[in-house]
Amino acid sequence: MTMPKLLILSRDKDEYRRLIESVRLPDLEIVVDPKKCDIVLGEPKLVRDTLPLLSTLKWVQSIYAGVEPLVDPAERHDYILTNARGVFGEPMSEYVFGYLLFFEKKILQRMKSQEVKQWQRPESGVLRGKTIGLLGVGSIGAHLASTAKHFGMTVRGYTRESEESKQVDQYFHGKDLLKFVDGLDFLVCILPRTQDTNQIVDKAVLEALPSHAIFINVGRGNAVDDPALAKALNEGKLAAAVLDVFEKEPLPEDHPFWKTSNLYMTFHTSAISYPEDLTKLFVENYQLYIEGKPLKYIVDFERGY
Amino acid sequence: MTMPKLLILSRDKDEYRRLIESVRLPDLEIVVDPKKCDIVLGEPKLVRDTLPLLSTLKWVQSIYAGVEPLVDPAERHDYILTNARGVFGEPMSEYVFGYLLFFEKKILQRMKSQEVKQWQRPESGVLRGKTIGLLGVGSIGAHLASTAKHFGMTVRGYTRESEESKQVDQYFHGKDLLKFVDGLDFLVCILPRTQDTNQIVDKAVLEALPSHAIFINVGRGNAVDDPALAKALNEGKLAAAVLDVFEKEPLPEDHPFWKTSNLYMTFHTSAISYPEDLTKLFVENYQLYIEGKPLKYIVDFERGY
Repeated sequence: MTMPKLLILSRDKDEYRRLIESVRLPDLEIVVDPKKCDIVLGEPKLVRDTLPLLSTLKWVQSIYAGVEPLVDPAERHDYILTNARGVFGEPMSEYVFGYLLFFEKKILQRMKSQEVKQWQRPESGVLRGKTIGLLGVGSIGAHLASTAKHFGMTVRGYTRESEESKQVDQYFHGKDLLKFVDGLDFLVCILPRTQDTNQIVDKAVLEALPSHAIFINVGRGNAVDDPALAKALNEGKLAAAVLDVFEKEPLPEDHPFWKTSNLYMTFHTSAISYPEDLTKLFVENYQLYIEGKPLKYIVDFERGY
Repeated sequence: MTMPKLLILSRDKDEYRRLIESVRLPDLEIVVDPKKCDIVLGEPKLVRDTLPLLSTLKWVQSIYAGVEPLVDPAERHDYILTNARGVFGEPMSEYVFGYLLFFEKKILQRMKSQEVKQWQRPESGVLRGKTIGLLGVGSIGAHLASTAKHFGMTVRGYTRESEESKQVDQYFHGKDLLKFVDGLDFLVCILPRTQDTNQIVDKAVLEALPSHAIFINVGRGNAVDDPALAKALNEGKLAAAVLDVFEKEPLPEDHPFWKTSNLYMTFHTSAISYPEDLTKLFVENYQLYIEGKPLKYIVDFERGY
C-alpha cells in the first residue's frame, strides 16, 4: 500500500487540516490535487462536483449525515462512501428537547404575561410521563430516545425493521405507521431522504395525531406533505410544528409555511457539524482503512443512507 | 399506639384524600378535626395557621420543600417536621434546562427572523462542554447535575460542606464562593431561605460571572441582591437572568425588575407539586412512622431546612 493521500473539501478545510495534522496519522499525506488523492473528507456537494477529477478515489468520508448528492443514481458509485453518524445525536437532542421544553414550560406565554406586568401562574406542562414517537431510529434517534428516557418519557420508534436502541419502549414497522402515531404527544421525524420516506407524514398521519400534539422535523423535507401540515396547523388540529428542513431550501418566499399558524421554522441548523467530532470519526475510520478492516458507517448507495 | 389520625391541609385535599384512601394504609384514619389529629399532611402556611389547634400533633409532612412559616422561631417546634424532597428534581430540571436550551438554541431570535421572512442561520450554542454551577446541591441540585451530565456539561457545586452527589465534578465550600463562580457559563441557585443565604448572589458574585453567563434562581428570593442584579443586567454585564422566586411575592408593581433588560420572570412555578408524588412520599414516611423508625427528610428547625 502506497502512502494514502487525503483531499479535504470543506469550507472549514484549514481547520480540518490543522486538526488532522495535530493527530499525526501514520503515513497520511494531505494533498490539494484531486487527481492525486485516494481519500476525500468533505461536504457531499463539493465532493460530487469534484468526482470527475477523482481518478484514483477509493474512499469518501462525508462530514454530513445526508449524502443525497453522492447517492444520486446519475453519479459514479465505484468507491466506499461513509457518512457522519454518531456525532449529531447530542446537538439534535439539545434542539429537539429545547423546543419541547419551550412549549411545555410555556416560555412564550410567560414572557407575554411579564410584558403586561401580570403575576400569572399558568400551569406548566411536563415531559415526564408523555409519549414521544421517533420516526426513524438510527444513531440520532437513539440519542433522542436516551434524552427522552432521562426526562421520564415513554418512547416509541418507527423503523423499517431495525430494533437496535434499547431506550425505545415499543417498536413499530411497515404498515403499523398509524398505530405508531396514535396518541403520541410528540412526533419527531429524523428520516433520511429516500424514495420510501417521501411524504410519509401525510394527511392520515397528521389526523391520527391528537390535537395537543407537536410535530418536529429534523430529518429531511421530503418526509412531509406540506399542504396537509399547513392545513392541520391552521385549523388547530395540531398544537404546533417545528421544521428545520424543507423540500426546497432556502424556503421559497411564496411558500405557505411563512403564513402558517403555530409553525416554528429554523433553517437547517438543528445538527451542527463540529470539525473536532468529525476529525475524531475520520481518524477512527482511517485506522480501519490502513488496517484493511471494514469502515464504520458505510453508505448503501441503493438504500441511500 | 392508638390508631393514627391524619388531617390534610391543602387546596388539593380532596385529591390527597382519594389518593391516600386508595393505598389503604394500615390503621390510618383521616379526620377533619384539628384537635383530634397526630399527623398533618399539608401546605406550610395552612399548617402554621392551624398550629394553635393541633393539641395532639406529633408529625407534619409538608407538601412543599420550603417550610419557612413553620421553622419561624416564633412558632412552636414540639413536633417532627418532614418536608418534600426528591420529588422536585424532575420538574425543576425541565424548567432549568428548558430555559438554558431556549437561550442556547436562540429560539427567540429564530422566531424573529421567521417573522420578517428571513432565511437566517444564526449559530446555535450548545450545552455540551459548558460549565454549570449549582448554588446548593440537595436532592434538586443532584437531579440538575444528572441532567447536566446527560448533556455533556461540567458541573460545579457550592455547598456548606456536603459532597453527596457524584454527578458534581468539583465542589466548593465556604470562602471559595468566588472561585466557584469564576468562569461559569450558567449559575443556578437552588438555595433554601436561611440566614446564611441572604443576598449570597451579591455584586461580587455577579461581577465574577462572565458577561455571557446566565443566572437562574429557583431557590428563594432572599438569595439575590436585587438592585445589583438589575444593574448587572441593564449594563449588559450578564447575558440574562431567569427568576422564579422573589423576596416579596407577588412581585410589587413598582419593583425595578419589571423594567430590567434581559430578565425573564416566572412566578413561583418552577417546581410543581404532584399529589401523586407527595402521596408516595407520605406513604413511605407513614410506614416508618408506625414502625417507630426515623422518618425521611426531617427538617432541622434551627438550620431551617
